[in-house]
Amino acid sequence: MLFNKIAIIGVGLIGGSLARALKAKDQCNIISGFGRNQDNLQKAVDLGVIDDYSDDINTVVQDAEVIVFATPLFTFRPLLELLLPCINDDVIITDAGSEKGSVVKAAREVLGKNITNFIPGHPIAGTEKSGVEASFKELYQDHLVILTPLPENSDQNISIITQMWETCGANVVNLEVDYHDKVLAATSHLPHVLAYALIDCLANMEEQGDVFKFSAGGFRDFTRIAASNSEMWADICLSNKTNLLELLNLYTNHLTKIKKLIDSDERAELIELFSRVKTTREKLNYN
Amino acid sequence: MLFNKIAIIGVGLIGGSLARALKAKDQCNIISGFGRNQDNLQKAVDLGVIDDYSDDINTVVQDAEVIVFATPLFTFRPLLELLLPCINDDVIITDAGSEKGSVVKAAREVLGKNITNFIPGHPIAGTEKSGVEASFKELYQDHLVILTPLPENSDQNISIITQMWETCGANVVNLEVDYHDKVLAATSHLPHVLAYALIDCLANMEEQGDVFKFSAGGFRDFTRIAASNSEMWADICLSNKTNLLELLNLYTNHLTKIKKLIDSDERAELIELFSRVKTTREKLNYN
Repeated sequence: MLFNKIAIIGVGLIGGSLARALKAKDQCNIISGFGRNQDNLQKAVDLGVIDDYSDDINTVVQDAEVIVFATPLFTFRPLLELLLPCINDDVIITDAGSEKGSVVKAAREVLGKNITNFIPGHPIAGTEKSGVEASFKELYQDHLVILTPLPENSDQNISIITQMWETCGANVVNLEVDYHDKVLAATSHLPHVLAYALIDCLANMEEQGDVFKFSAGGFRDFTRIAASNSEMWADICLSNKTNLLELLNLYTNHLTKIKKLIDSDERAELIELFSRVKTTREKLNYN
Repeated sequence: MLFNKIAIIGVGLIGGSLARALKAKDQCNIISGFGRNQDNLQKAVDLGVIDDYSDDINTVVQDAEVIVFATPLFTFRPLLELLLPCINDDVIITDAGSEKGSVVKAAREVLGKNITNFIPGHPIAGTEKSGVEASFKELYQDHLVILTPLPENSDQNISIITQMWETCGANVVNLEVDYHDKVLAATSHLPHVLAYALIDCLANMEEQGDVFKFSAGGFRDFTRIAASNSEMWADICLSNKTNLLELLNLYTNHLTKIKKLIDSDERAELIELFSRVKTTREKLNYN
């Protein structure tokens, strides 16, 4: 067994799925939960996802070998400050936030010399659902988990968090913090904003009911992520705003290019552009 | 049996799936195919999707009760002109184009008084794959097919095309031509352009390999439609350009609104907007 006790701060889709996977693999004796919503925590206990919870964070983290943050990014700093008096020098802290720059900055400022024990992480997995009922033990199976270890981290601590995710079936890779945030802005944060904007745009059309009525699989898949957790995604957009705004401008340029080709009836160029995109997309070899 | 003979012009995903469904339900004795690509037509025969093909369109449509066009929009007019000398006054012509305004205009100009026999149609179904190998008999099952009948059409002819699609498991609804093109611009044509633009944008980033490497399910689903047939989609964009450009401008306004909220750190407004979108998307009740 990897751990005697783990504390999970935020027992939703991400934290709940981690707990379920560790339990399923019998890799943790006790999983304690902390969160804002007592109903959700009680549900987590009822579902067997966690063993117990408390509104006293000290009780939750006491004797835990690892504390995992799986809450919206803007709650990380205040929760870490709340936690600070309760932790010893040995406990490993990690997180599952989709952006790493602001998390690392907050962790350095709050933890001081104990930053050695903070291993930033980001599982590249999720669904558009939220809450502990949406969690499932296979969420991380064959998915990537990115760690962005800090120069202060010990190899041993990195290795423990790596094992934690590998136990859940994930493949762990290490990236630099800044590089992570730039890449994820492109592959995840930008598409979410584009999908939110599409539903926001169409919901305001007078034909609204019909627009959605006559939608098919393409629209369904394209907009699935627009049902994602609002607070989590607002925080991601704001935390990674420099990268995201830069990409939104780049994206708008590409969209304008296509608009111009359409406006000036450049059929051959449009076919060429769409063909190039089709080839790129097909090479990605999903499923 | 509904038909003795049907001619399908363009035996790809759409035309091939119609043929397979009619065959599977034993609703047509002979299905003849016409197209640009002889290899594809031979494959269609080998797969049992059609019974025969010819490079002489006269042979293909001879004695057919229905001629179905399932080719890219810009090929509709020249193919209809090619077909004109071969058709009698009784044959019903229909199509499966994603835009109806240009198709109806071309049909009126080419067919003259025989416009009575042209029933414009659009099955709201498809995948990102193309070619006859991608076709399958269940494609239209529980999907909508929109017909945009013309004032000149007889109830009987509309009813025959309605039955043809219902045989394939589809639910048939009638819309006005202009309304169809406006609604489909929003629900289908706009998302395709947005997905094409995203891949085009990211493929040009220096981190390209990593961008795609660290993508997950959200990105996969969002960009699936960017692998769609290039010529078909170029033609849709150009045929429906007025509606599409108007929507692209509207979309850009909504995207700019979100960009401004991010840029000015308006967290509460961003959460409120994302929540509103989430509620709208969840109400759509897909799956």
